[in-house]
Amino acid sequence: MSAPTLDNDTGWFTEICTKGGSAFSLRVHARLHAEQTPYQHIEIWDTTEFGKLMTIDGFVMLTGRDNFLYHEMMSHPALFTHPDPKRVVIIGGGDCGTLKEVLKHPGVEHALQVDIDERVTRLSEQYFPELCESNQDPRAELYFGDGIQWMKEASPGSVDLVIVDSTDPIGPAEGLFSEAFYRDVYRALGNNGLVVQQSESPLLHYENIIRPMHKAMREAGFADSVSLQFPQPVYPSGWWTATLAGKRQVTVFRDADALAKPFVTRYYNAAIHRGALAQPEFFLRGQPD
Amino acid sequence: MSAPTLDNDTGWFTEICTKGGSAFSLRVHARLHAEQTPYQHIEIWDTTEFGKLMTIDGFVMLTGRDNFLYHEMMSHPALFTHPDPKRVVIIGGGDCGTLKEVLKHPGVEHALQVDIDERVTRLSEQYFPELCESNQDPRAELYFGDGIQWMKEASPGSVDLVIVDSTDPIGPAEGLFSEAFYRDVYRALGNNGLVVQQSESPLLHYENIIRPMHKAMREAGFADSVSLQFPQPVYPSGWWTATLAGKRQVTVFRDADALAKPFVTRYYNAAIHRGALAQPEFFLRGQPD
Repeated sequence: MSAPTLDNDTGWFTEICTKGGSAFSLRVHARLHAEQTPYQHIEIWDTTEFGKLMTIDGFVMLTGRDNFLYHEMMSHPALFTHPDPKRVVIIGGGDCGTLKEVLKHPGVEHALQVDIDERVTRLSEQYFPELCESNQDPRAELYFGDGIQWMKEASPGSVDLVIVDSTDPIGPAEGLFSEAFYRDVYRALGNNGLVVQQSESPLLHYENIIRPMHKAMREAGFADSVSLQFPQPVYPSGWWTATLAGKRQVTVFRDADALAKPFVTRYYNAAIHRGALAQPEFFLRGQPD
Repeated sequence: MSAPTLDNDTGWFTEICTKGGSAFSLRVHARLHAEQTPYQHIEIWDTTEFGKLMTIDGFVMLTGRDNFLYHEMMSHPALFTHPDPKRVVIIGGGDCGTLKEVLKHPGVEHALQVDIDERVTRLSEQYFPELCESNQDPRAELYFGDGIQWMKEASPGSVDLVIVDSTDPIGPAEGLFSEAFYRDVYRALGNNGLVVQQSESPLLHYENIIRPMHKAMREAGFADSVSLQFPQPVYPSGWWTATLAGKRQVTVFRDADALAKPFVTRYYNAAIHRGALAQPEFFLRGQPD
């Protein structure tokens, strides 16, 4: 991947996906903030049509306009699949958007967000306050540290749902895509335990990320896994997945509860959940596009 | 919209969506062809990762890599919704990709493609031969003329399914998005008749295209309509719709037949069809994103 470019004459932020042979650009008024943390380079941009934009190491993380798709699909399908999720751990997710969605479920008693970089959260509080509305919820806990290490040390059976809301599987997040990590997740989970992880693009990453992730999750002990499909316009190809694995079946969910959900969403509903479980024909054949 | 740019130093084709404040680029080896027809400016590019690319007036029409998503979703859901589709008319669709999918259905007796610009088809035959494999099928008929005029003159009740596979609703295709056109379509259709039309992005065009299209279709007489959702990576936002309207209900389909389809697809199957019928929560509320 190349470095992003901002042409000050035309005012565009561009993310180049060298391997994919594609690039995506957003028109920006200005770069509002840039800093190098001990872990990564974070920038905040003011776009003309997509609200605020956060990038990390030159990759689009989220925009104000379309992050609802990602955050809703990283949380609600898993929460309505578990029979009674009370204890949720989010690995990554420092922008707090997933945390906010998780806490919409009244049955959740404790939601712990484990992100290695406190600056992501502090910048989100400043530039994406709408994502941080639930940070003061008494059920929310923010811990800044290494998610891989945290999972190694977690008490067996102490968690109902693990949400891996990480950056791409290069750099610091690479260890979050390994069988060793999934073994630790499996041990930390209770009997009905589930894990859901962002798993990149069906078009671009089926062979090299999605299929190996299923294999690693099954080898770590999970009985079932499925890749939920959803649109995510600002990520490469605009088509994304969250892969859900469980100690029991993950393709059935509490659809009556999802139909009667006591909170507002913008994308997710019970029908969208069922739809996200549908697998493209080329997935079923186990072949790349 | 601005003109596309090809920076010969870096070798990128870029489509700028000025209103959307975004741009999408594909890395290209070369531009293979460019011509001004009486109707539009057609270019063919050789991309590094997406196969061949056809653009019209600077807008991405299709690539070899991902057109299967669009062509399958423009044809199979409608064909499996009609109880017994025999006579299909495609308005636009000059690249012949939709025609090829339509002719995979053994029950189809006649499929007429009406595109105003013969050069689109001739260039597709040359650069996208895989889309033109069924052009010699005895059931296929290629007619080069004005689809709006054709529809005005069609015999009442003579068609089972109309597929409007057009460019964006600006320029020559604008009339294909009007209530007057849908009235002509309605008259041309038999009792179980259906129309399906590409209807742009749920994220970018809900208010200004998708919602007005439903209104115009209903006012033209159609009893039911729904926007099928699917990924389309090379179109703005990567998330696209095909709006299906019928003289009867369009949200049920011949799912047993779809499950037992006697042909190969890469994306479409019965579960994907059901999933495409699921409407995002903001559609149900009738509000923009």
